[in-house]
Amino acid sequence: MTGKLFIVGVGPGHHDHMTFRAKQAIEESNTIVGYETYVNLVADLIEGKEVHRYAMTQEVERAHQCIDLAKSGKIVSLVSSGDPGIYGMAGLIYEILAEEGWDRKIGLHVEIVPGVSSLNSCAALVGSPLMTDFAVVSMSDLLVPWEIITKRVEAAAQGDFVIVIYNPASKKRIHQLQDTRKLLLKYRSPNTPVAIVKGAFRESEEIVLTDLESMEKHNDKLGMITTVIIGNSSTFMYKDLMINPRGYTSKYNIVEPQQTRK
Amino acid sequence: MTGKLFIVGVGPGHHDHMTFRAKQAIEESNTIVGYETYVNLVADLIEGKEVHRYAMTQEVERAHQCIDLAKSGKIVSLVSSGDPGIYGMAGLIYEILAEEGWDRKIGLHVEIVPGVSSLNSCAALVGSPLMTDFAVVSMSDLLVPWEIITKRVEAAAQGDFVIVIYNPASKKRIHQLQDTRKLLLKYRSPNTPVAIVKGAFRESEEIVLTDLESMEKHNDKLGMITTVIIGNSSTFMYKDLMINPRGYTSKYNIVEPQQTRK
Repeated sequence: MTGKLFIVGVGPGHHDHMTFRAKQAIEESNTIVGYETYVNLVADLIEGKEVHRYAMTQEVERAHQCIDLAKSGKIVSLVSSGDPGIYGMAGLIYEILAEEGWDRKIGLHVEIVPGVSSLNSCAALVGSPLMTDFAVVSMSDLLVPWEIITKRVEAAAQGDFVIVIYNPASKKRIHQLQDTRKLLLKYRSPNTPVAIVKGAFRESEEIVLTDLESMEKHNDKLGMITTVIIGNSSTFMYKDLMINPRGYTSKYNIVEPQQTRK
Repeated sequence: MTGKLFIVGVGPGHHDHMTFRAKQAIEESNTIVGYETYVNLVADLIEGKEVHRYAMTQEVERAHQCIDLAKSGKIVSLVSSGDPGIYGMAGLIYEILAEEGWDRKIGLHVEIVPGVSSLNSCAALVGSPLMTDFAVVSMSDLLVPWEIITKRVEAAAQGDFVIVIYNPASKKRIHQLQDTRKLLLKYRSPNTPVAIVKGAFRESEEIVLTDLESMEKHNDKLGMITTVIIGNSSTFMYKDLMINPRGYTSKYNIVEPQQTRK
């Protein structure tokens, strides 16, 4: 009996934004593994299946268990929200398999099922901030030294990238986003648009549009399901939207060629 | 009669990776607008609907037409591959609406339907390159001056970001990726892993894993449906996979706590 391992991203917390492939992989599986919260997101798809729920911070054990279950012949879906290929479980699974000498051509069947990640869902909700080059930075310094993260924030500021911040803060981890804000203020105007999106597409969704100057007034929105988007020099706010033009205005005209601008 | 405008990302070129919401929006629409190639991706969903096909480089006209059709009471889906929120049509639609004084609370209903973008799909296909901070840069200098793009590549190199390159080259535009490679070689080893993914999840899909030194041997794979991922100092190749560890190895151990490393 040949097992399979799907590493499935179910997108933001709403079935609507799950892909057909994600649903198909879960349906094909007889065994489901994931954080309590993620497993609950797909509760209606997993009735009658063997389900292993985990608490946070048990990633290594969870990865080993998934591999072992699949090796024993089971068809396993390791589910997570968003996209497992972005700061997700895909990496740990491959690291462990590589350590074991696995060969994808002849060994266990492993498939990463990509999903709509926070950068995609949050951008869609707040306007069009990702029409230009952007950098994605995680504030979590559990596994990466803080000096490296700071260096990256500074580089992104110097490159005038729009910056998408994953894991902006947790209960124990607050100073990182504050330090990042201070660093960015050396390069960017206090009026630079900032979007704080908590629980995108979930029932608890909360969106705040603010700026670098005032973002600290909204620290109560920060947490593990929050993403922060910080504009670059071209980003502007229009009513309740955060917009990046698709290029330099000198380079194009949004009025149709045959018309004259009023 | 109230119109609606959906700006729909259908993901990479295969229905499997489309979201349920994308399908729903297209089904709800009576009018479909998009590039010939994108419209063909959803041919089976649009039978009997009013369909407007466009050639490349008519984005401004297309955006105006979508807005006009929706204002006239039609339910319109502007379809594109990937995610319209990443270098896509979302921005142009909002720029035009902002110019007109539109207010999303009381005016025309507009919804961005996010999709699996190239960064998500290509990462899933080649391994797990996006476990660490990354920068996304488009090589297209049609709308952005080349000096700005160069500055960003250099900043991304200095920040040791993994770099995802959109629009790496077209028939007329070849030097940009060559210049980028030369610039990156000032900061990164010639052995830095590089993935070139053409037509992710399409029938014509081609994937090349190479490195900064040798990537130019594969210029025949470049084009408008190609994405290039360039590793950072931690990225490694393992057989036919491009892997980024999820953190600094000093900070975690992939062997389970109760086991001893061999």
